[in-house]
Amino acid sequence: MPSYSPVLADLIDKFRALPGIGTKSAVRLAFHVLNMTEEEVADFARALTEAKSKLGLCSVCSNISDSERCGVCGDSSRDPGIICVVENPRDVPSFERIKEYTGVYHVLHGVISPLDGIGPDDLKIRELLARAAGGSVKEMIVATGSTVEGEATAMYIAKLVKPLGVTVSRIAYGMPVGGELEYADEMTLFKALEGRREM
Amino acid sequence: MPSYSPVLADLIDKFRALPGIGTKSAVRLAFHVLNMTEEEVADFARALTEAKSKLGLCSVCSNISDSERCGVCGDSSRDPGIICVVENPRDVPSFERIKEYTGVYHVLHGVISPLDGIGPDDLKIRELLARAAGGSVKEMIVATGSTVEGEATAMYIAKLVKPLGVTVSRIAYGMPVGGELEYADEMTLFKALEGRREM
Repeated sequence: MPSYSPVLADLIDKFRALPGIGTKSAVRLAFHVLNMTEEEVADFARALTEAKSKLGLCSVCSNISDSERCGVCGDSSRDPGIICVVENPRDVPSFERIKEYTGVYHVLHGVISPLDGIGPDDLKIRELLARAAGGSVKEMIVATGSTVEGEATAMYIAKLVKPLGVTVSRIAYGMPVGGELEYADEMTLFKALEGRREM
Repeated sequence: MPSYSPVLADLIDKFRALPGIGTKSAVRLAFHVLNMTEEEVADFARALTEAKSKLGLCSVCSNISDSERCGVCGDSSRDPGIICVVENPRDVPSFERIKEYTGVYHVLHGVISPLDGIGPDDLKIRELLARAAGGSVKEMIVATGSTVEGEATAMYIAKLVKPLGVTVSRIAYGMPVGGELEYADEMTLFKALEGRREM
């Protein structure tokens, strides 16, 4: 990038290092920052460092939290006997959005993936087993993705948790509501057929 | 966004306020920040505030610069007698990339657009006229866009600058190199036809 001032080139580089941001977007974003007020920029910079310094993992469920216990785990109206196991923190708000789930969560921070060198010890599986062994957990709903790794992780968890007397279930995979059969991919249709229920 | 910690929600909001970043991207970027090292985040925050505090406009050409004169205006090998007039600072690196242009620039910071309430006084046109009146400018290459506003701005500048004895030219618009006629839009084809040259 010729003729960009080094200070500007540095900011462009920082944006380009973010996922999904190419050179053109990075340039556009950097110029946008120059058009923001000094206060807005300071606010943005503060939000960045604060998020990094204040946020950690909930000591119970490993979800992102700004206190020792996350909002869900600290909410006495939630049932700690039902644990929904998800791959990563972004999945929790998806469940919260439907406003129907009253149990708690456990965030694995990934899935078992031998090809990527990710084994059970790299995930929050030990913590999950400790919760299951505590005696108060009735059901575990495994909501890892329907990828090979997600399925394998679900199987692995089920095998370890079932002997502890905990019911393990898997969320249903099938046709999305409003989805058209015509446009469904084979795996989704296969899952929909496989998961059919008697009416 | 339920169940996001306020600190995280704040960072997501900051990303979402950037141009071209929707909610999903903002969430992804915010989570990416949490996975960056503390040093990387501090570096990003510093780049933001530094860009805002250190960058200003070149006193000669109004391009973004971290010193009183930008790199191009301060380069004695460049010919100050030829000025390429562009809409905004992002256009300068495009010209620099071709490594053929040895003149200098003038950044207007927009185009005349009465519908948006942008008149000549809102742009760096007064500064451009002052340069033209200085006596050492031989040619002005107007490279504003081929939009109605870009054309009108070019005409406006030509009308004021020509009487000062400065040659005013407009960059050529036509088929991009490697572009296929089949996929060209009408305006581009029209410009290509209009700008034809005898062989």
